[in-house]
Amino acid sequence: MEYYVLDNEKVRDYIENTPELKAILGDETLCVEEVGDGNLNYVYIIKSSKNKLILKQAVPFLRIAGEGWPLSRERMNYEIRAMHYYGETVPSAIPQVYHANEAMSLMVMYFLDEHLIMRKGLINGVIYPKFAEHITDFMATTLFKSSSLYLSGEAKRRLMDRFNTNVELCKITEDFVFTFPFMPHHSNAINPMMEAEHQQLQEDTEFKTQMLKLKYLFMTQSDALLHGDLHTGSIMLNAKETYIIDPEFAFFGPFGFDIGALIANLLQSYVSHFERSKNKEYQKWLLDTIEEIFEKFEIKFISHWDHTDESGLLVDGYGNKKVITAFQKQFMQMIFRQSVGFAGAKMARRLFGIAGVEDIEGIEDMEARTRVKKHSLAIAKRFVKEYERIENVKELISIIKEENR
Amino acid sequence: MEYYVLDNEKVRDYIENTPELKAILGDETLCVEEVGDGNLNYVYIIKSSKNKLILKQAVPFLRIAGEGWPLSRERMNYEIRAMHYYGETVPSAIPQVYHANEAMSLMVMYFLDEHLIMRKGLINGVIYPKFAEHITDFMATTLFKSSSLYLSGEAKRRLMDRFNTNVELCKITEDFVFTFPFMPHHSNAINPMMEAEHQQLQEDTEFKTQMLKLKYLFMTQSDALLHGDLHTGSIMLNAKETYIIDPEFAFFGPFGFDIGALIANLLQSYVSHFERSKNKEYQKWLLDTIEEIFEKFEIKFISHWDHTDESGLLVDGYGNKKVITAFQKQFMQMIFRQSVGFAGAKMARRLFGIAGVEDIEGIEDMEARTRVKKHSLAIAKRFVKEYERIENVKELISIIKEENR
Repeated sequence: MEYYVLDNEKVRDYIENTPELKAILGDETLCVEEVGDGNLNYVYIIKSSKNKLILKQAVPFLRIAGEGWPLSRERMNYEIRAMHYYGETVPSAIPQVYHANEAMSLMVMYFLDEHLIMRKGLINGVIYPKFAEHITDFMATTLFKSSSLYLSGEAKRRLMDRFNTNVELCKITEDFVFTFPFMPHHSNAINPMMEAEHQQLQEDTEFKTQMLKLKYLFMTQSDALLHGDLHTGSIMLNAKETYIIDPEFAFFGPFGFDIGALIANLLQSYVSHFERSKNKEYQKWLLDTIEEIFEKFEIKFISHWDHTDESGLLVDGYGNKKVITAFQKQFMQMIFRQSVGFAGAKMARRLFGIAGVEDIEGIEDMEARTRVKKHSLAIAKRFVKEYERIENVKELISIIKEENR
Repeated sequence: MEYYVLDNEKVRDYIENTPELKAILGDETLCVEEVGDGNLNYVYIIKSSKNKLILKQAVPFLRIAGEGWPLSRERMNYEIRAMHYYGETVPSAIPQVYHANEAMSLMVMYFLDEHLIMRKGLINGVIYPKFAEHITDFMATTLFKSSSLYLSGEAKRRLMDRFNTNVELCKITEDFVFTFPFMPHHSNAINPMMEAEHQQLQEDTEFKTQMLKLKYLFMTQSDALLHGDLHTGSIMLNAKETYIIDPEFAFFGPFGFDIGALIANLLQSYVSHFERSKNKEYQKWLLDTIEEIFEKFEIKFISHWDHTDESGLLVDGYGNKKVITAFQKQFMQMIFRQSVGFAGAKMARRLFGIAGVEDIEGIEDMEARTRVKKHSLAIAKRFVKEYERIENVKELISIIKEENR
């Protein structure tokens, strides 16, 4: 099939000619509405009396900038492949995928109409009691089961091969997370009251050296299949269910990157609420959630490990219980530390780079917003500088609290 | 072209039908001789009055075991691709490649008839005054120029993509270097006088945990394109020239692996000469060479780095001199330490695993051979256990000397 850009009418035709979708929606005139608010893709809601679906199509240019800003639509291939992997390993963590077509750069999914983007929920102070449980199921399972701790060397390299060429989106992260925000760059958007901080950061040799280390890790450490962009805008949820969406940045990278992204976003919400709601209860829930995520992640990851007899790394008969336990302990600390480092990088970049987060940018009062930014920066700096030495979650929480003012 | 296995007559026909080779050898009856002494491939020497060439063809089974032991001939693809990369980056380090054909799993190269396999030279106590210079040119250049310190993120991933599926040969290393030698396994060949040491090693939690760490690094750290099997049997040289051959294990792995393999082999020669030649002068040359390799590698690697304006990792304008220097210092120490760890792994596995080295196995007196093995093991254990703490080459040399008896 040759690629073409859909519109409402063509969506109807496409479904008419795709039996698996027609079977779901039934034989009637469909209601089709384009609702993409994103910068990249077209998103259609398709309704019949029987069902509601989402169709997402990538176009070969940056949507907000138009056809003059080309961006390969190949990114949808990686999103399709990651969703396929998630569907096989933790089906309950994603909206069901009914149809995918790499040639057409499109995917059709269950329409989540009872779930909110998590960032909106956090801004409004909503507590999600099951979130830590759900997200650690997702992260522990998808990371563990795509790693050399679970797969054979061959199976891992074959899976890696399906993501290795996601170069465009990796480069976006390399540039916009690890590099441009910390140098003079035209893409930066720096609040005038943060100019001095930005200047200072550029002269902070320790911070910049550590950031290079984290970037190098991101570029070369092929631990597991990452979501690659696991912020609170890539999560849709309600009190009972949590769904992960938009894994177009998926690639094989360091274990700590997804966890770090998530922690950074929870902390951005935490600092924002010193000005937004001033709700200490809510902030406590956020910190407790961070603690719970690290603890549950470790328990679940180790549990997967203990239930795996053989893998590329661990051949049955090589190590006795003592060897495995000693190795696991060091391994989990390594993941924890990297997560903290990446959380710091993610927090810092949001303060200066092209993409702010609504949690902070949405605070209308400039001085309040600046206070939040400085607070966020103080935590980020400590994470980036100290991540290789932080011992455990308790110490992490103390560092966060020490930076409260 | 469909693959077929060559023989002397078919080699003549193949050349007759390959103009680029015919042009080199001339229009006369060729003298063809099969000389492969290896376990894997067929090697033909082809002579005319004008020229002498080597043709190497991989067959889809393990040659020593016959057609009943299948081994994919794809390995030649990786050898061809690695030689191509070497030809582009350090042409002086490899025999010239005149022709390569992935479909036929064959490659035609310059015939090195004035050069000896390095292992033989070391056994005979030959000093190679230019070796450290040449091998560091090769390692510093090929490793640096395939890394994120030189290539763009995209160029690196594209190059990586050509080696990522070299799964069979990576698995050989994973199994036979990092795993089987350190557990009870039918592939091991353990000298009865080393049984106790083998038993002890299996109960050495620290050693086995560290070995897992090294194996994990090997499996997941995609620093640069490695030769993958850089022992002294993969080097042909004389007093003036040094050539690298047989990169069929090539893949993207940790910087320290090639360096470690080389250092291990030089040290195996060093310990063997306590019994072989008892030539202190020669042993001094070996230790001096190890020191020189680490020192020259670092100087050359940094020099490449300092001459690189921009790369995937380092964007022009990100770091000032202070940042780059601080990062380089940590980075080079990381490479050094990993090299020491891998050297230890490589030394240890040769003592118990399927493949011994002639330097040691060729010592006829069993007790003398055992002394050498115990000595080699003592050094290997210290390297594996201490590699993350060793500060510099001086300390490394002290450790080696402390284990002399």
